[in-house]
Amino acid sequence: MDKRPFQPQLPKGVKIYLPDEAAAKRSVEQRLLSVFTRWGYREVVTPTYEYADVLSLGTDETLEEQMFKLVDRDTGRLLALRADITPQIARIVATRLRDEPKPLRLAYVTNVFRYQEPQVGRYREFFQAGVELVGLEKPEADAEMIAMTVEGLQALGLDRFQINVGQGDFFRGILEELKVERSHGRQLQAALSRKDASTLERLVQELAPPASTAELLMALPDLFGREEVLERGARLVKNPRSDRALANLAEVHRLLRAYGLAEAVILDLGEVRGFDYYSGVHFEGYVSGLGAPLCGGGRYDHMLARFGYDCPATGFAFEVGRALLAMEAQGVSVPLEGPDFFIIDFTPEKTIALSLSRRLRNLGARVARDIITRGLPESLTYARGQRARWVLVVGDPKTKADEVLAIELATGGERTIRAADLLEAPDRWFPIQGGGAGRG
Amino acid sequence: MDKRPFQPQLPKGVKIYLPDEAAAKRSVEQRLLSVFTRWGYREVVTPTYEYADVLSLGTDETLEEQMFKLVDRDTGRLLALRADITPQIARIVATRLRDEPKPLRLAYVTNVFRYQEPQVGRYREFFQAGVELVGLEKPEADAEMIAMTVEGLQALGLDRFQINVGQGDFFRGILEELKVERSHGRQLQAALSRKDASTLERLVQELAPPASTAELLMALPDLFGREEVLERGARLVKNPRSDRALANLAEVHRLLRAYGLAEAVILDLGEVRGFDYYSGVHFEGYVSGLGAPLCGGGRYDHMLARFGYDCPATGFAFEVGRALLAMEAQGVSVPLEGPDFFIIDFTPEKTIALSLSRRLRNLGARVARDIITRGLPESLTYARGQRARWVLVVGDPKTKADEVLAIELATGGERTIRAADLLEAPDRWFPIQGGGAGRG
Repeated sequence: MDKRPFQPQLPKGVKIYLPDEAAAKRSVEQRLLSVFTRWGYREVVTPTYEYADVLSLGTDETLEEQMFKLVDRDTGRLLALRADITPQIARIVATRLRDEPKPLRLAYVTNVFRYQEPQVGRYREFFQAGVELVGLEKPEADAEMIAMTVEGLQALGLDRFQINVGQGDFFRGILEELKVERSHGRQLQAALSRKDASTLERLVQELAPPASTAELLMALPDLFGREEVLERGARLVKNPRSDRALANLAEVHRLLRAYGLAEAVILDLGEVRGFDYYSGVHFEGYVSGLGAPLCGGGRYDHMLARFGYDCPATGFAFEVGRALLAMEAQGVSVPLEGPDFFIIDFTPEKTIALSLSRRLRNLGARVARDIITRGLPESLTYARGQRARWVLVVGDPKTKADEVLAIELATGGERTIRAADLLEAPDRWFPIQGGGAGRG
Repeated sequence: MDKRPFQPQLPKGVKIYLPDEAAAKRSVEQRLLSVFTRWGYREVVTPTYEYADVLSLGTDETLEEQMFKLVDRDTGRLLALRADITPQIARIVATRLRDEPKPLRLAYVTNVFRYQEPQVGRYREFFQAGVELVGLEKPEADAEMIAMTVEGLQALGLDRFQINVGQGDFFRGILEELKVERSHGRQLQAALSRKDASTLERLVQELAPPASTAELLMALPDLFGREEVLERGARLVKNPRSDRALANLAEVHRLLRAYGLAEAVILDLGEVRGFDYYSGVHFEGYVSGLGAPLCGGGRYDHMLARFGYDCPATGFAFEVGRALLAMEAQGVSVPLEGPDFFIIDFTPEKTIALSLSRRLRNLGARVARDIITRGLPESLTYARGQRARWVLVVGDPKTKADEVLAIELATGGERTIRAADLLEAPDRWFPIQGGGAGRG
């Protein structure tokens, strides 16, 4: 036996999903995976750890600092737990799938690990469900990502949501026009990220760009809203890169209109937070009731080249923990079901309980057995706690040896059924459907 | 851009599941989870890492040496990736669920990590699906584990399987009777594990026990087979602990007969491999065609006490990787399905393709879109590679502007449908059922 002191604590930032929470989590993941499947995406499973330097090829500095790292015993090289799935999929595409015909439609449902302070619905280990669409540079691919995101939100039962769509190249064009140093660019980006108008104004005064550029920079925080943003942007912008970004965003918006999704979308030309990561259209999904985005994604055309294969790509992911919080905030509940039948057998042989369980399970019903010997009232309390629907009692003093007492827990309704009759055709007595007894 | 040398290797012992493999893996996991659910078990999700010393409370030395460890940045304490789920669930029960009424029926589907040489169907990160039944000391609980294991094997489509059932206390009783030192006990156990009769004989000569004990020890490697093993064991055994173990095993066997499972079970009193871990009945499942057990489990009544809560428990797990190999060996294939519809739209507006996709998906069909502009033959080749069933072509030269050309890939059969008619009632033209179009 172990002699060390007893200390069963958990480290900071990890979470246990007990059965109700685990059922909700699985339900969210399955609903999202089902959307991905309907759009023709197929799951891949990536390793939890890889060489840190390989993962870093597709990871920005902030995220790299947050990686969990450990030393590989074989090679002495550093390993890291994945902090993001996209670089892993980029690596897979570049090495294992580069000769496959494009586009590739890939999905994943998995955990990631980041050494950071726990955030809204996000622990140090948290769960993502997402897709990558590889090999398409067309706006239709970007529109497919946003349309799927909306369908994902709907599949979770959420409404009152909004997708904020930006285009990183719009701001990149302005930076080129300014010809500023990298550090100045960073400061501008930081001020814009915070929608910090006074810092932005000070920076613009320091940089002293041409009047039209200054006007555009100062207007950026307000360049968000419906379709008219495209025209307002077009009137202000002078450089070809930003112009192309606007045209690209306009085409994506047109396609989203064709999808019937224009109402869900807000265009935001001042959104520069995903700037380092995304190369084109990028977006985040918000729902009323949750103060953090629960999904997001965008185009990352340069990532695959870092793994040796130059190929455009876009993708998005839902954060499962935040999706669960959003559903809670909007009053969307996941149905929690217990066993259809809970069987208590007071006889020493247990033969009827065993054959009855088997018969019912073969019909697709969920059947749990009481095995502890205790009084019927205690067993019924336990069965209620398990959310059982019916309790079948064998060997109750009220019934004969060849009879089963059936109790419907919700109503307390009882009836006595001959065991042989019940075994012969359980579905004559209870509404059993494949995949679980009917709840209606 | 990153300037480091390009080196996208993977560390030893990790595995990537590409789409076909990932689909098979998910299918195995879902079939097993569905069995667990039918028996009233509910999933829990445990953290991937915990404090190493906490996990070690429920881990034997060999497995502890195989743990992936890293230093916690907050506390400097060692963290470890889980190498086994049972200690985590023991910890959860002892801390979070100790006041819940028993029995607890818990399930899991997850990965574990072990620094060991890759084995049959097992990488350093590998996947398990299993259950724990907590709070029951009765033989019915052990029988439930074995019956569920058999149902799991059947749910995977496997036949020609065998469950080898042992009872660790049988051998423990003999060791008590021998009053040998721990090191001698280890040597006996090692020889028995290998069914190494000559080493066993040498050890018995050295120990020079009473003649009846010597006879029992030498008989142990042969004490396996059907029910008659119980009688052969009873005739040889003299100590009360081994006697109780036999009676317990006999009762489990009686219940398995009542389950109709006696044919699948081999009793093995000389099976001592799980000796350190299991406290009572333990078992391993084998299938013809795979030279390693693909599932196993047993009773671990002492584990919860190490986490501060004395409570009996039993459980088992399937190894998903080995289940996949076993299915391959027995020719059980997982149906791999592609999209029901693959839609190609040659028009610049893509409006028909967008509304058609949405309409079909809303009916539950799986729909992928070609977005690359390429010739129809190339698109059809791609669609075949994706295992699409039907291809719908909008804007083909052969059809009018308001028509859609439908091609069934398996037969090459073509027909032309008015887009408006198709949109109005797609299920009049194609056998679409919820959850995907019918394949029959």
